[in-house]
Amino acid sequence: MKFPTFLPLLAGALLATAPQAMATAAAAPTALVAAPAKAAASTRIDPTFWWVGMKNPKLQLLVHSPGIADSKLSLAAYPGVTLEGTQKLESPNYLLVNLTISPEAKPGKLQLSFTGGKTKLKYAYELRQRSTDKSRVQGINSADFIYFLMPDRFANGDPKNDVVKGTKVDHIARDSMYARHGGDLKGIEQHFDYLKSLGVTAIWPTPVTTNDMPKASYHGYALTDYYNCDPRYGTTEEYAQFVQKAHQNGLKVIHDVVLNHMGSYNYLFLDQPAKDWFHQWPTFTRGNYRDGTVNDPYASALDRKMFSTTWFDSTMPDLAQENPLVTNYLIQNFIWWVEYTGLDGYRIDTYPYSDPKFLMDWGKALLDEYPQLGMFGETWMQQAEGVAQQAYWTSNVFPPVDGFKSNLPGAIDFQLKYAIEEALNKDAGWAEGVSKIYYTLQGDWMYQDATRNLIFLDNHDMSRVFSVLGEDVNKLKVALAWLLTERGIPQLYYGTEILMKNFSNPDGLVRSDFPGGWKEDKRNAFTAAGRSPQEQDMFQYVSKLGTYRKAHPVLQTGKLMHFIPEGSVYTYFRYNDQGETVMVMMNTGKEEKTVDTSRFAERLTGYSSGVEVTSGAAVADLKSVKVPAMTALVVELRK
Amino acid sequence: MKFPTFLPLLAGALLATAPQAMATAAAAPTALVAAPAKAAASTRIDPTFWWVGMKNPKLQLLVHSPGIADSKLSLAAYPGVTLEGTQKLESPNYLLVNLTISPEAKPGKLQLSFTGGKTKLKYAYELRQRSTDKSRVQGINSADFIYFLMPDRFANGDPKNDVVKGTKVDHIARDSMYARHGGDLKGIEQHFDYLKSLGVTAIWPTPVTTNDMPKASYHGYALTDYYNCDPRYGTTEEYAQFVQKAHQNGLKVIHDVVLNHMGSYNYLFLDQPAKDWFHQWPTFTRGNYRDGTVNDPYASALDRKMFSTTWFDSTMPDLAQENPLVTNYLIQNFIWWVEYTGLDGYRIDTYPYSDPKFLMDWGKALLDEYPQLGMFGETWMQQAEGVAQQAYWTSNVFPPVDGFKSNLPGAIDFQLKYAIEEALNKDAGWAEGVSKIYYTLQGDWMYQDATRNLIFLDNHDMSRVFSVLGEDVNKLKVALAWLLTERGIPQLYYGTEILMKNFSNPDGLVRSDFPGGWKEDKRNAFTAAGRSPQEQDMFQYVSKLGTYRKAHPVLQTGKLMHFIPEGSVYTYFRYNDQGETVMVMMNTGKEEKTVDTSRFAERLTGYSSGVEVTSGAAVADLKSVKVPAMTALVVELRK
Repeated sequence: MKFPTFLPLLAGALLATAPQAMATAAAAPTALVAAPAKAAASTRIDPTFWWVGMKNPKLQLLVHSPGIADSKLSLAAYPGVTLEGTQKLESPNYLLVNLTISPEAKPGKLQLSFTGGKTKLKYAYELRQRSTDKSRVQGINSADFIYFLMPDRFANGDPKNDVVKGTKVDHIARDSMYARHGGDLKGIEQHFDYLKSLGVTAIWPTPVTTNDMPKASYHGYALTDYYNCDPRYGTTEEYAQFVQKAHQNGLKVIHDVVLNHMGSYNYLFLDQPAKDWFHQWPTFTRGNYRDGTVNDPYASALDRKMFSTTWFDSTMPDLAQENPLVTNYLIQNFIWWVEYTGLDGYRIDTYPYSDPKFLMDWGKALLDEYPQLGMFGETWMQQAEGVAQQAYWTSNVFPPVDGFKSNLPGAIDFQLKYAIEEALNKDAGWAEGVSKIYYTLQGDWMYQDATRNLIFLDNHDMSRVFSVLGEDVNKLKVALAWLLTERGIPQLYYGTEILMKNFSNPDGLVRSDFPGGWKEDKRNAFTAAGRSPQEQDMFQYVSKLGTYRKAHPVLQTGKLMHFIPEGSVYTYFRYNDQGETVMVMMNTGKEEKTVDTSRFAERLTGYSSGVEVTSGAAVADLKSVKVPAMTALVVELRK
Repeated sequence: MKFPTFLPLLAGALLATAPQAMATAAAAPTALVAAPAKAAASTRIDPTFWWVGMKNPKLQLLVHSPGIADSKLSLAAYPGVTLEGTQKLESPNYLLVNLTISPEAKPGKLQLSFTGGKTKLKYAYELRQRSTDKSRVQGINSADFIYFLMPDRFANGDPKNDVVKGTKVDHIARDSMYARHGGDLKGIEQHFDYLKSLGVTAIWPTPVTTNDMPKASYHGYALTDYYNCDPRYGTTEEYAQFVQKAHQNGLKVIHDVVLNHMGSYNYLFLDQPAKDWFHQWPTFTRGNYRDGTVNDPYASALDRKMFSTTWFDSTMPDLAQENPLVTNYLIQNFIWWVEYTGLDGYRIDTYPYSDPKFLMDWGKALLDEYPQLGMFGETWMQQAEGVAQQAYWTSNVFPPVDGFKSNLPGAIDFQLKYAIEEALNKDAGWAEGVSKIYYTLQGDWMYQDATRNLIFLDNHDMSRVFSVLGEDVNKLKVALAWLLTERGIPQLYYGTEILMKNFSNPDGLVRSDFPGGWKEDKRNAFTAAGRSPQEQDMFQYVSKLGTYRKAHPVLQTGKLMHFIPEGSVYTYFRYNDQGETVMVMMNTGKEEKTVDTSRFAERLTGYSSGVEVTSGAAVADLKSVKVPAMTALVVELRK
């Protein structure tokens, strides 16, 4: 999520529409429920189904049906399942049902009968068998190379779902950056081979969960139904199949998670279970977007409140995660997605905006159930806040501050993104330019494990890196060489490999369609024939490095050693105990440099020559290496 | 100590002169020994004397005398004192003597007899009574306002000691920035009233310890005799008296300590006790000045070594502090200075350059003996390294990194110095300009107690703040208002109050003489008559704020609350439980701003008006406050 230049984009969608009558608002979402709903159309139960054999035997159902609160619930005898009780909320249209599912319980259907109130309801609630497929939930780690894309903008594999009846948008309009364009899961699947040719091992689409908002719904971060895939991308079942197909293709899937807020058309907001499920404000109150207030010893209570409890945008009600019922709803939902689809990792939107204690509870619950689950959070902050503040939001060496200690495995490494940008756009100095990378990495002592950080050059909320680098292909190559040799999990934003460009202001242009993703496109950049020579050159550069990285553990899990930059040249090594060593020599200056390598003896001893990976050129003499202006040499060392 | 632009200044003094014959080199130093030396002229014992009743009963004497190593030592019976043994070193001219002084021992003289070797020596080693003067070792804390000066450049109170026979400089030359100018302790004493009129409570002179180097000895950081005051400033006894007189005037004294290195004319280097007392290099090897290598998880062993064990400059041999004998020598020496003079605090030069374990041992030993002792370290680093790295070098919330956990009470807050400079010289932005102060303070969660940090605008190694601020008096006033209202211990560099200026490059000019410190000076800026109207205005501004601060605990120990900057206006409060509140509204912009204060209700509730401290102007309406362009209002709130 972007602040604050992003704001104009969503300013048109109004808070004023909410809340509406439940009947109208909930009609569309319930039509999309994935579980076989046996009950009346206006009834839904979250989670839509569940499993036997989960580590946590507790399950809390949120039953939504007109007047349901007055009903009494009985559960038909079901071995291993106990009805612990029900709980009313402020709204008459909700009832919480607390169940315990013992390890002995078998899959089947719980027969729930609600009687005595306005609503008489029978509901067969499904308990499924957990899948034992070994390819599920592989986790995301530094062996991966992530391709980040917007599903609406990547490829349209199924024109039939471009417009889905019952949703609030009745057209696509590819000439508008704020409209839907028709891309979908099928479109991604059709280009698995393209991704594999880049060496990509994981796909991160912006949220695929239902975003049935009237405006800018392609954006995806204003969820309106926590338990379904947006039908414009595919059915919820098709999403589960998408994950499975990706796994069959050696590609992992990262699911983009929004915990802090929801879309104002979410049924939970339109007909609120209770006022204390949301941070309520008399009128729309924009936040201050200052994560530092959370741990600033000098922050005023007001500044802190204006960060954590305000709305991210007018269409995004802020969840009161400090409410244990909300906490539980969100924990169950995100366990559900892992268990249902077998996804490999979560990217967590606007991570610092959530309630700190909630973040700990949520993270712990997820990791308790899936210790291997990949997770990294959008820890977007200012460069001025530094590595410490970024580390504060992830697993770090600090003691708890005001009771908060993040258990998030990795950050999205904005500090390194700022650093690589400075390295390429600012002259090298003692601590400036390329030295900024050196100093930023120095701060890694503050992380529990910095290799779990996601590193990147740009994303959907930012100016595209090619534009930021002045459309200088040499600079972009240095940036990409860095991305694919640095510690951490590299992420490429779709299209960077074919020189897609644009600035984030005015917003939207950085979210252009991938050329060739639509049948009607004049050219197909998924194929070499559809790429210009320059695009093809960059594609091959990424492909060369990406596939090299994929084949060489040293670039995935190898240790890092770097040396103090000398002038414009920064040299670092990835190396491991299996005798692999890759030397990266990055010259960000305007002149060729000849580097005397005697300083690097610790890593060079035992090696006599090398091969530059991107060009295939031999490096016969390791004692003295010439590095052309604005070039990164990636040298595999040979004995 | 300054790097690396400072280097040309000392490059002329050569390492090549060392080592010389002991007889020549040690002649001058021994003449300066403070203790009544009963032995031959060429003999000295460090510590020069000691005390009974110290917490640590151990005492290790370093005896230096030609061929002394072959001698046998006997100690005449002395109740409570045990000779534990002696220890030879590599050099025949040294012998270590280990004593235990039990709590019962009385003051007196230990009769040491060295016999059997080339040297026959009797030495009456003095054990003194500890002083019980309550004004001793008051500590330095946030109630203080420190005046930092170079004694050679402040005032010449005693022309008789301008040139001292036996030292290596035979003249003064006030027209050369690298020569001695003749300032001394007496000169400082003569201006105690001047300092008090500024509200100053503590004096920090650059090192007063003997610096008998042939070049740039005024500088003071190349110690040649650890146990004596430089005779150009006064005798060692006069220094102790200086501390006493300062105390009588309500002024504390900070002693500037150099642990990392010594001067190449120190007798310990000219006639080395053992090679392993110094980091030896085949030729002079300059360090890399990168403190980050110490805790960088990716640093090469070479880069780390090139930081910690290299020489700071060609005339400054690097002490091998990892040698326990060196550790002990330095611990005893700095306990000696506290005990002998009653000084209040230590400023520790080049703190990160010392051996990490040594720093812990040294700090612990000092704080064990004097828990109240003020201490802050020169944690000079790049802005790019951030608050975390600065906090790393002081008492912080981090767990040990590679076994190092600093026990230094406070840092010299370079990060805040960078921030105030950015605030005044760069337009305000989301995280730039004045927001940089906001974000830097946010990082205070990493310190055990950030109020123990020394805050400052400039020092002897830097361009003077008035020049850095473009000689803009309005900017300087904002800077000074900030300095005297911010959390921490404010330090003013001498002459800032009378608009002294200049850039550090070429070096030296920032160390100009205070006008009026010499009888022959044409004007005397210590008096109002000797100051220009602009100088007088700035003097009064500092005086007003300094004396206000001294009279108002809220600016000394009050809590801090700050609010997110709005545009160019940054507002913060100091407040305490005694009902005092001071509001500081800093506008660094080019336009007057009218500030709606409703955001500040947490601190304003209960107050109806205020008085602007520097002007005495009433602030009748607290609801809306006008802040002129580039102005800091310091408002005492009234009920």
